[in-house]
Amino acid sequence: MEWIFLGTGAGVPSQERNVSSCALRFTESGGNIWLFDCGEGTQHRILASPVRLSRVDRIFITHLHGDHIFGLPGVLGSRSFQGATTPLTLYGPKGLAEFIEVSLQTSGTHLRYPLTITEVGEGKVFDCKGVTVTVGKLAHGLPSYGYRIEEPDAPGELLVQKLQQEGVPSGPHFGKLKRGEDVLLPDGRHLRSVDYLGPIKRGRHVAYLGDTRPVERGVELAKGVDCLIHEGSFADGCEDHAHRYFHSTSRQAAEIAKRAGAKRLILNHISSRYSASEIEELKAQACEVFPHVDIAADHSVFSIEGEMG
Amino acid sequence: MEWIFLGTGAGVPSQERNVSSCALRFTESGGNIWLFDCGEGTQHRILASPVRLSRVDRIFITHLHGDHIFGLPGVLGSRSFQGATTPLTLYGPKGLAEFIEVSLQTSGTHLRYPLTITEVGEGKVFDCKGVTVTVGKLAHGLPSYGYRIEEPDAPGELLVQKLQQEGVPSGPHFGKLKRGEDVLLPDGRHLRSVDYLGPIKRGRHVAYLGDTRPVERGVELAKGVDCLIHEGSFADGCEDHAHRYFHSTSRQAAEIAKRAGAKRLILNHISSRYSASEIEELKAQACEVFPHVDIAADHSVFSIEGEMG
Repeated sequence: MEWIFLGTGAGVPSQERNVSSCALRFTESGGNIWLFDCGEGTQHRILASPVRLSRVDRIFITHLHGDHIFGLPGVLGSRSFQGATTPLTLYGPKGLAEFIEVSLQTSGTHLRYPLTITEVGEGKVFDCKGVTVTVGKLAHGLPSYGYRIEEPDAPGELLVQKLQQEGVPSGPHFGKLKRGEDVLLPDGRHLRSVDYLGPIKRGRHVAYLGDTRPVERGVELAKGVDCLIHEGSFADGCEDHAHRYFHSTSRQAAEIAKRAGAKRLILNHISSRYSASEIEELKAQACEVFPHVDIAADHSVFSIEGEMG
Repeated sequence: MEWIFLGTGAGVPSQERNVSSCALRFTESGGNIWLFDCGEGTQHRILASPVRLSRVDRIFITHLHGDHIFGLPGVLGSRSFQGATTPLTLYGPKGLAEFIEVSLQTSGTHLRYPLTITEVGEGKVFDCKGVTVTVGKLAHGLPSYGYRIEEPDAPGELLVQKLQQEGVPSGPHFGKLKRGEDVLLPDGRHLRSVDYLGPIKRGRHVAYLGDTRPVERGVELAKGVDCLIHEGSFADGCEDHAHRYFHSTSRQAAEIAKRAGAKRLILNHISSRYSASEIEELKAQACEVFPHVDIAADHSVFSIEGEMG
C-alpha cells in the first residue's frame, strides 16, 4: 500500500500546500483507492497525481472544517462526469450528509453511481472487504476523528519444497493445505496444514488522524502501526497557540508515535507560516523524540512495505 | 477597469483551465473588485493573481452549476480568515442562499464581515454605488443569467485654459463650474458651466453572460457594450451538441456580439476537448463573423479603456 499526499497545508491553501487530502492506494490488492479528507482543490491535485477517481471507492472525512470537505462536491461530481458507475461510500461525522445533499441538489448534480453516506462516531468499526477500519474521537473544535486501518493477516506461504522432499505429489490438496485444511492422501498419509505453511504474514496497520490536540485516543489508534499520519501544525514554543486552536506541535505528534510504538510517523497539516528551512526544524524537533519522521509535501508518496510489501 | 480571468474552462477543471471565475477590477475608482462566478479552486487561482480577497466587495453568480459555485464557501471563509471586515454582497439565483448557509454552518465557518445574499431574476436592476447592473435571463439547463454593468457617465473636463484666457481668477467657482453649477463673478460676469466643460465622458458598459445557448436576451444585454464576455464552449460542427447541452459555439457568440454592436468579444468557458491549436480555430471561426475577438486563458487580463480609461 502507499500513501499519496494531495494536500498537506493547514486551514487555507497556499501556493506550496493545498488544504487537506490524502489517498491510500492498495497497490497489491487491485489498486483501489481510499481518500482521507477532501479539501477544496483536491480534484485539481488529483489531475497531477497517479490517483484516478474511478478507482476511489471510499472516502473518509475526519471532521467538517471547510479545509477538509469543500472539495467533496467537486470530487463526487467529476467522478460521475468521468464515467464511473461503481459504488462509492463516504464516511464522516454527523452533518456531512446534509452538506452533500444540498450541494448536489443546488447544483443539479446527478451522480451516475450509487453513493452511500455513513455516519462515523467513537468506537465504530467498519469491515471494508476484509480491511478493518476503527474510528476514534480526537480533540478538536468540531468533532474530529482518527481512523485506524488494519489489513487482515495472510496465511503463510505453502512450503512446496518440503512437500516435494516428502514425495507428496502435486494436486488439488496443495490448495487445501494452503487454505488451512488438513488432507488425507490416497496412500493413507495424513497431512496437517500447519506443518506445511510458513509463518503467518501480519497485515499492515496504519492510522490517519484528523486535526487534534495530542490525546490518549490517538495513542490507542496508533498502537503498533506501521505508519502513523498525525498533524504537526506548529513548532516548539507554539504549544499554547496549538492548544487554543486544538492542534499539535510536531514534537507532540512524535510523542504520540513513540508512546504508541509506531514504526514511522508522517507529519501533515503544516501551517503556511513556516518556510522550507523552518519545516526542517519541525522535523528535527520531532526527531528528538522519535527517530522515524517524515514531513509530507503535496504529491509526496510513501510506500508502506510491512510484511505484505 | 480590467477583467482578470481566473478560470476559463467548462464543466470540470483541467491542468490548463480551471472552472469558471472572472474578476472585474475598477482600477480607476478605488480598486474594488467584483467576482463573476466562483468555481472550485477560485481562491487558489487568486493566490497567483493581483486579486486581493479584501478588495472583493461583490460576487455575482450566473447559475448554480457546480463549476460556477463550488469555490464560494472557500472564498467566503478565506476572505474572513485573511482579516477582511468590510461587507460583501453576493448576487445569484434562488437556491444559492441555502447552499451558502449549509456550507458555512456545516463547516463551523464564522465570517467576521457582514454577508448579504441577494436573489437575482430577469429584469432586476441593482445600483451598486452608481454602477448599474442589469440582470437578464438566458437559456441553460438551470436558470442562468447575464449581467450588464454600466458605469455612470462623467462630466467633461473643466476647460481651465479657456477660463485663464478669459481672465477668470482661480478659486472655489472652478469647482462649482466643474460640478455643473453656473457662477456669478464679483466683477458681474455670469459664467455658464456648460461653456467651460469639455464633452461628457461616457461610462463604460460591459456584459458578462453565464452559460447559455445563443439567445435574444444576450443581444439585448450586450447592446453597444465596450466588451462582451460570452461563452464559446464549442467549435463549428458542434451546434447540435451545444444546443443539447445549452451551450454556444464560438461563431454563435460572435453573432451575438455583432448583432449587439459590441466593440469587442472575449470568449470564455472553453471545452477541455480542444488543444491549443484547435482553440486558435475557435477564434478564427468567430473572427469570420466579428473581427474583435479574444479567447480568455486563466490569468488573462484585459483592460477596458473606453473613454474613461
